Amino acid sequence: MNQPIAHASLAPATPFRTAADARRAIRSGAWTGHTVGLAPANVQGNLMILPADLAGDFLRFCQANPKPCPLLGVSEPGSRRLPALGLDLDLATDAPGYRVFEHGELTAEVPDLEAIWRDDFVTFVIGCSFSFEEALLAAGVPLRHVAEGRNVAMYTTAIPTTAAGPFHGPLVVSMRPMKAADAIRAIQITGRLPAVHGAPVHIGDPSLIGIADIAAPDFGDPVAILPDEMPVFWACGVTPQAVAMAAKPALCVTHAPGLMLITDLLNRDLAFV
Amino acid sequence: MNQPIAHASLAPATPFRTAADARRAIRSGAWTGHTVGLAPANVQGNLMILPADLAGDFLRFCQANPKPCPLLGVSEPGSRRLPALGLDLDLATDAPGYRVFEHGELTAEVPDLEAIWRDDFVTFVIGCSFSFEEALLAAGVPLRHVAEGRNVAMYTTAIPTTAAGPFHGPLVVSMRPMKAADAIRAIQITGRLPAVHGAPVHIGDPSLIGIADIAAPDFGDPVAILPDEMPVFWACGVTPQAVAMAAKPALCVTHAPGLMLITDLLNRDLAFV
Repeated sequence: MNQPIAHASLAPATPFRTAADARRAIRSGAWTGHTVGLAPANVQGNLMILPADLAGDFLRFCQANPKPCPLLGVSEPGSRRLPALGLDLDLATDAPGYRVFEHGELTAEVPDLEAIWRDDFVTFVIGCSFSFEEALLAAGVPLRHVAEGRNVAMYTTAIPTTAAGPFHGPLVVSMRPMKAADAIRAIQITGRLPAVHGAPVHIGDPSLIGIADIAAPDFGDPVAILPDEMPVFWACGVTPQAVAMAAKPALCVTHAPGLMLITDLLNRDLAFV
Repeated sequence: MNQPIAHASLAPATPFRTAADARRAIRSGAWTGHTVGLAPANVQGNLMILPADLAGDFLRFCQANPKPCPLLGVSEPGSRRLPALGLDLDLATDAPGYRVFEHGELTAEVPDLEAIWRDDFVTFVIGCSFSFEEALLAAGVPLRHVAEGRNVAMYTTAIPTTAAGPFHGPLVVSMRPMKAADAIRAIQITGRLPAVHGAPVHIGDPSLIGIADIAAPDFGDPVAILPDEMPVFWACGVTPQAVAMAAKPALCVTHAPGLMLITDLLNRDLAFV
């Protein structure tokens, strides 16, 4: 993939009472910033929008790789609606920003998709780690990158994904350093949240999954690992983005980094999906 | 504690159709061997029998330390019955062997308690790792000590238990080496089984919990840890035995190592207690 993909950290700002309020402000252009903390009880989703001729393969890719690609919803071809995630929700306007890629190259960054929407677009809404990070913080598990206001460290691994059509490539993981007791609790907590990446894919020695230098993440910011800590690795939503870019589709659209879709789903309900 | 406490491994023998059949054979003296694999679907319990004047403190100790001391049942003072664990169950006869300790010293090993039963005895039945080992094996998580037919490796740690009356002392843990992916699954699986020690208390670096030499367990047999594995540590039922011995009660009785109480509880139901 050619573009660095940022991964904004949790922030305390909570200016909106409901997800619908936040979406309305974003839709009208009143809110153009990142979505972290905007409606903290609500699930935010990554967006991947593809023409229908590629959507079947991408859906199979997500189904075969649920840890990096936990699907919260898939639209009807051409539809801007996804009522299961919000009755009023408009997929073409409700992220604060979008990125347009042609043949795997970023060609535009736009505030909405009104001008470029096509009636063969299929939108995939994919769960993200903000939801499980909220669950970890609520359980008293410290997250250093959040405390330091940095992006989470992400690494391309030697673990292959299961290919589907043109979509294939290595698993990308995010890493959070933890004391062993916190790692154990984090595994228990996130194991109950399969809709937002689920349990970690690896703990401990980074070289066992093909990470040569833990101090040099491929995406995001490096983070210190203290002597009494171990790295804990989760499948990351950058995986489907990287895989889609590598397939070089004629056209694809994503949310802009940190500018995600706020849904009516509640983080607290994710243990029961 | 003065006596080495063995911890027999799972074995394939399954000579009894039900737990009640196994208890009947043990009660009559027809079966005098260890109980491993005798009724493999059923929960087996460690026994701790104390005079009533110490039972209150020991009950508080177990309540305060649920990971090493998961209580499956506590009898009425003097009663040999515990119908919740088996309608016919007789606490004085249904383990194949018992050990009698006076002031912390082993003074007798007996096949039943008919001659020494007292009407102030309170019996504690404590969950054991056989149940979670069955769940791990059923989920495809290999256990090296089982495959090698050895006792699990156990270590006295620097982690203190919460004291209650005369009962206090360090946490004893059992250790199973695993690949990271298996360790993650094992944490998820055993985290759902709080009645049999629950999730691990530590993973990784043994020195962080005061284990100086992982190759030299304090109880049980050493086991190899391969380069792509990590040690995974669970709270161990040897903890309450060691704590009780260290308190040097005038009298206490336990099951003999590997000769446990077979209950009507099913391992498969332990996720729902």
